[in-house]
Amino acid sequence: MSKFRQLLEPGSIAVVGVSDEAARPGSQAVRALLANGYQGKIYPVNPKYPQFEGLSCYPSVTAISETVDVVVIGVPAKAVLTVLEECAAKKVPFAVILSGGFRETGAEGIEREQRMLQIAREGGVRLIGPNCLGLVNIHSDVYAAFGSMTRAPKLKRGGVSLLTQSGGFGYSIALACAQAGIGFRHVIATGNESDIDTVQLIEALLEDDATECIVAYIEGTNDGRALLDAGRRALAAGKPILLWKGGVTEQGARAAASHTASMTGSYDFYQALFKQTGIVEIGELHEAVDYLRAFASAKYPQGRGVVIMGVSGGSAIVFADAGERVGMKMCELDADTQARLSGVVPAIGAVHNPIDLTAGYFNKANQEKLEKAIRAALDDPNAGALCINLATTGKSGSIAAAEVLRRVAPDTDKPIVVFSSAPPSEVGAALQMLDEAGIPVFPSPARAARALAALAAYHERRADIAAEAGRQAQQASAQNIGAALDSIVQSHGSLSEAQSKAILQAAGIPVTRDIFVTSGNTAGLENLSFPLVAKVVSPDIPHKTEAGGVKVGIANRAELDSAIAEVLDNARRHAPHARIDGVLVSEMVRSGFELIAGVVNDEVFGPVVVVGAGGIYAELLGDSSCRLAPFGVDTARQMLDELQCRRILDGVRGAAPLDVDAAARALAALSHFAWDARHCVREVDINPLFVVEDGVLAADALVVPSMRADLH
Amino acid sequence: MSKFRQLLEPGSIAVVGVSDEAARPGSQAVRALLANGYQGKIYPVNPKYPQFEGLSCYPSVTAISETVDVVVIGVPAKAVLTVLEECAAKKVPFAVILSGGFRETGAEGIEREQRMLQIAREGGVRLIGPNCLGLVNIHSDVYAAFGSMTRAPKLKRGGVSLLTQSGGFGYSIALACAQAGIGFRHVIATGNESDIDTVQLIEALLEDDATECIVAYIEGTNDGRALLDAGRRALAAGKPILLWKGGVTEQGARAAASHTASMTGSYDFYQALFKQTGIVEIGELHEAVDYLRAFASAKYPQGRGVVIMGVSGGSAIVFADAGERVGMKMCELDADTQARLSGVVPAIGAVHNPIDLTAGYFNKANQEKLEKAIRAALDDPNAGALCINLATTGKSGSIAAAEVLRRVAPDTDKPIVVFSSAPPSEVGAALQMLDEAGIPVFPSPARAARALAALAAYHERRADIAAEAGRQAQQASAQNIGAALDSIVQSHGSLSEAQSKAILQAAGIPVTRDIFVTSGNTAGLENLSFPLVAKVVSPDIPHKTEAGGVKVGIANRAELDSAIAEVLDNARRHAPHARIDGVLVSEMVRSGFELIAGVVNDEVFGPVVVVGAGGIYAELLGDSSCRLAPFGVDTARQMLDELQCRRILDGVRGAAPLDVDAAARALAALSHFAWDARHCVREVDINPLFVVEDGVLAADALVVPSMRADLH
Repeated sequence: MSKFRQLLEPGSIAVVGVSDEAARPGSQAVRALLANGYQGKIYPVNPKYPQFEGLSCYPSVTAISETVDVVVIGVPAKAVLTVLEECAAKKVPFAVILSGGFRETGAEGIEREQRMLQIAREGGVRLIGPNCLGLVNIHSDVYAAFGSMTRAPKLKRGGVSLLTQSGGFGYSIALACAQAGIGFRHVIATGNESDIDTVQLIEALLEDDATECIVAYIEGTNDGRALLDAGRRALAAGKPILLWKGGVTEQGARAAASHTASMTGSYDFYQALFKQTGIVEIGELHEAVDYLRAFASAKYPQGRGVVIMGVSGGSAIVFADAGERVGMKMCELDADTQARLSGVVPAIGAVHNPIDLTAGYFNKANQEKLEKAIRAALDDPNAGALCINLATTGKSGSIAAAEVLRRVAPDTDKPIVVFSSAPPSEVGAALQMLDEAGIPVFPSPARAARALAALAAYHERRADIAAEAGRQAQQASAQNIGAALDSIVQSHGSLSEAQSKAILQAAGIPVTRDIFVTSGNTAGLENLSFPLVAKVVSPDIPHKTEAGGVKVGIANRAELDSAIAEVLDNARRHAPHARIDGVLVSEMVRSGFELIAGVVNDEVFGPVVVVGAGGIYAELLGDSSCRLAPFGVDTARQMLDELQCRRILDGVRGAAPLDVDAAARALAALSHFAWDARHCVREVDINPLFVVEDGVLAADALVVPSMRADLH
Repeated sequence: MSKFRQLLEPGSIAVVGVSDEAARPGSQAVRALLANGYQGKIYPVNPKYPQFEGLSCYPSVTAISETVDVVVIGVPAKAVLTVLEECAAKKVPFAVILSGGFRETGAEGIEREQRMLQIAREGGVRLIGPNCLGLVNIHSDVYAAFGSMTRAPKLKRGGVSLLTQSGGFGYSIALACAQAGIGFRHVIATGNESDIDTVQLIEALLEDDATECIVAYIEGTNDGRALLDAGRRALAAGKPILLWKGGVTEQGARAAASHTASMTGSYDFYQALFKQTGIVEIGELHEAVDYLRAFASAKYPQGRGVVIMGVSGGSAIVFADAGERVGMKMCELDADTQARLSGVVPAIGAVHNPIDLTAGYFNKANQEKLEKAIRAALDDPNAGALCINLATTGKSGSIAAAEVLRRVAPDTDKPIVVFSSAPPSEVGAALQMLDEAGIPVFPSPARAARALAALAAYHERRADIAAEAGRQAQQASAQNIGAALDSIVQSHGSLSEAQSKAILQAAGIPVTRDIFVTSGNTAGLENLSFPLVAKVVSPDIPHKTEAGGVKVGIANRAELDSAIAEVLDNARRHAPHARIDGVLVSEMVRSGFELIAGVVNDEVFGPVVVVGAGGIYAELLGDSSCRLAPFGVDTARQMLDELQCRRILDGVRGAAPLDVDAAARALAALSHFAWDARHCVREVDINPLFVVEDGVLAADALVVPSMRADLH
């Protein structure tokens, strides 16, 4: 926070670009500061005006004698650079550039944005924008903004901070939340993010005590690793981040490119990052509302079991349908709970979950019984959370229920959620009571179920990540891959299959036994068991099969000798100028299931490990899972669990189960290698990675050095 | 309608079970009728009261001298039967039974419900309920109901009729719609549906001119075929049905079972039915609101292309993301459109879709330009619909845009939808204007996209079903399967593989060439080409492989002779008492892709055809698709298109494409057979159905006769 303190809590704001034209962004900003009662100094700037809105107006930023924390710039793009030079001269620490006409407008704008950034960097001015709606601090009435961010309704104070790369759309999130009674701390529209970006602001908000939860709309980030770090720190700090990633489909990304030309990156990588940080992904306005309501209680389900209780069987069914899809289960009630319930709820046969209180149960006369029922449900060891379906219950019934819930809620750590579909005009008082008791109310049972699932997933993720971090700290570095890295750096950008496999073996990934032979030297072949595979080794022939450079199913020594001769011959004919080092003879894997594993060293996200179904499944299913490297065995196991082909690994049609643990260890090892080698490896491709009954075996592999290997 | 006219438009209503206790359902009903100004006669019934709420109170139903159209019964369950006997005596045509205490309460209640139904049937009284909230006719102020259905807010009049099996939850749909300004015609909570059910009411509402659209919440139906027919008639009549099916997941169905013990059926079959009728499935309250808004305009997208225009790039991205997932595409703009747009919208480089009007564009001064831009977009032949993103645009801007849209809308058949996230307190006037112009407004771009997709899918389905119906009418019955049906009926409940394949071949499904041989008679084998498969034929050995009754890959005559002997021998040892008819020798299919196809003759839905990936894929993917029989080749092709393995049929890894048309023809033929044989076939299993380069071949099949074959 301290780094951005003057930006987020400015004591003085200059606004350049005010005029009698009310629509001018600068004019709007000054009026908003005045109208909302901003307590700091306001300096309007325009050489043509002695006064503006009753304030002294200055001819330039440098003409202001007092210190200025933030300059808001709303002049046309061409004039922005001059204003920025003045800011630099005056040593203003922050400027908020509302003006458009930069990167988003094409070649000229890109150049202008670069010059602007250069002036800012040289002058020590940090920037928000350009091409943005600005920023608002609701607690301090800072309105360094224009447009919808300064229009009615005024947001109320609260613990939510909103960051958005799109002012026009992102502020919709604030409006939807405001209608639901949610209060705000900071709202920052970052526009082109020429300098300060969303990730840096997340980091600042983690240090802001008044921010309890962060909501962000982003189209892209240039630094996935910084987002990973920020996300993990937010998780450790217990400040949930709800993130809406725009441009997640092909046409969405195309629309994003035409919008701000953001680096939208690969959605798969973002989703991996969300899983690795506990960032809660949202994709609808009401999800922001629902999850903020849910997270505000700071109570988390203890397990995935839910007790559902209410006056509407249909609501319980809808909850159960939605719950099953997001992993929330209607739990069994134990005998003690059933005994406690049987006296206080209308029992139709056994007392089971969902608990049907029957129509009209919510009333003053039943409050004592209801309280007993709720306490019994909450005490059940299988119950991780409780959902009360008021459904269409009217005014008096809802108040009767709310009074009981208000009494019970402080005594439990388990979340209680409520579904009410009655109009606020009828049940407003009850809703208010529940809100004050920290009990979130949802307008549909499905939304209640999904909000509980978001809480549960967040809670689980926090435990997982803490556990994994703990285990990694205990582990010594598993592998010494210094020699392997040296061999990559010295490879001059090209590694053979044999070299690649040797490197991966050093990194802890089991590879098939094989012997490198040349036509002159076949020593060691006698140690291999038939059947064998022979593959030509050449740095210039990446696609060996197409070159006739692979023979499989070699059954005996005679076949082997002719196979070696044949693949060499084929390769020479296929690529007459290729350097041919020799032939790699490998034991052939005859059982197990083929996976494909690999590493992509992404510009934005760094090394990412991908695993998927191999063979024909790869094309059929597009079945893959990825995570940002490095990670531990538990994460690797989660990756495997996400695969559609996962069940095959446990053995289908009576086949023996395969060694999933070994596969997970190999992926974790690959991830550590990918991280350690991130400066010199561009890509790793292990295809196939056989999972067999007692291990895994990389049967073919290619490590592709980075063009920047010299940087290592 | 005429059949249920007195129920839905009663001229007189008796209410049994009124008392000073205000909470009594009957008391609530009478008060609601009075409070809402019902114009018909009201007859409260209770022997203890001379008057109730200022009305003459009658000792019994039979004591009323005038005719009574509907009796509302709110007495305890045990007393319901006596009241119903009075209704029968008085020849009352309809009773609405609000009381609970029937099927939903266990064995005693089930018996009570059966006796109740018997009295009603014998007395000619048709029933709504029991265990329901009753029914309301908003246009005629009929409130034969209690609970939330009679509480504030009063629903306004409109064209939507709501049917719900769950009063408590279903009325939430009405409340959500009411908050969105949607008006209603009939609201009917059907409860246990002992007599009149949702499907019969749908049929009645199709004849009700004042009903424009039907929304239904159901947990199950006992007659899937009637729902299929009603759905198709609704589609032909242009009255959309939005249907929420509760209990679609395992735990949802379990919750439903404990709720009303409805027949929830298989969700897959429901989904097939939705596709075959154009029924629009919903699963959230806001979907009901959104789709009702969209369908109210009665304009349908001409194709899947959408032009997006607005002041918020982020909103366009969110629309594009959501649109891609439901098949709505941002269309290309043709040269003419671009030329027309270039003068009137701020062009950043080329004028492309989404059209970025840039912040502040919506204002009075730009109205003429905006109108030109909108007309240009709507005239584009690629544009099937237009989405205007107002996003957070404020009061004056929204009014400026609404005025233009109101002018343009009457001139186009293409749907125009609007996204606005500004609070109604600010932009209410603009929203009102758009509503009156029949332009639906959505609170998120994603919801706008999904609503357009619902319209598009409905429109396509209507065309598909009309086309298929047309083609089927032209076709003569393709196959004469009379002999096949006879053989099934005469099978005494059991058919061999050879018999099954012969039946399917007669039905138009290609089967592998094979010869039935016995150890004594091997005539005809010389006509088959090696390799061959030999399979034992026995009505008592359904699982041939387990019995050692199958030999594959038989390469020559010598191998064949020993294979025949071997499978007979194995079968005899495996099942010493089995009748063994002989051996089926088939040509072996060596290429192509294995599907599984079959028929399930479901109690609720009748014959349903299922197709899925065969072999190991079946277990891996659970990849299947189904439709209610009979259907044509186009529907069969859609089934195949839904399979995850679909791409393999087009040829992967350089393989030749397989004969998808032949597969579709086989499925359609199977569906016609399934329909024609519905009285005598319980199940058909074709496994595998090979799709090869020039056709399909059923390599193994079993037709399982129905136990009720004698009914044929």
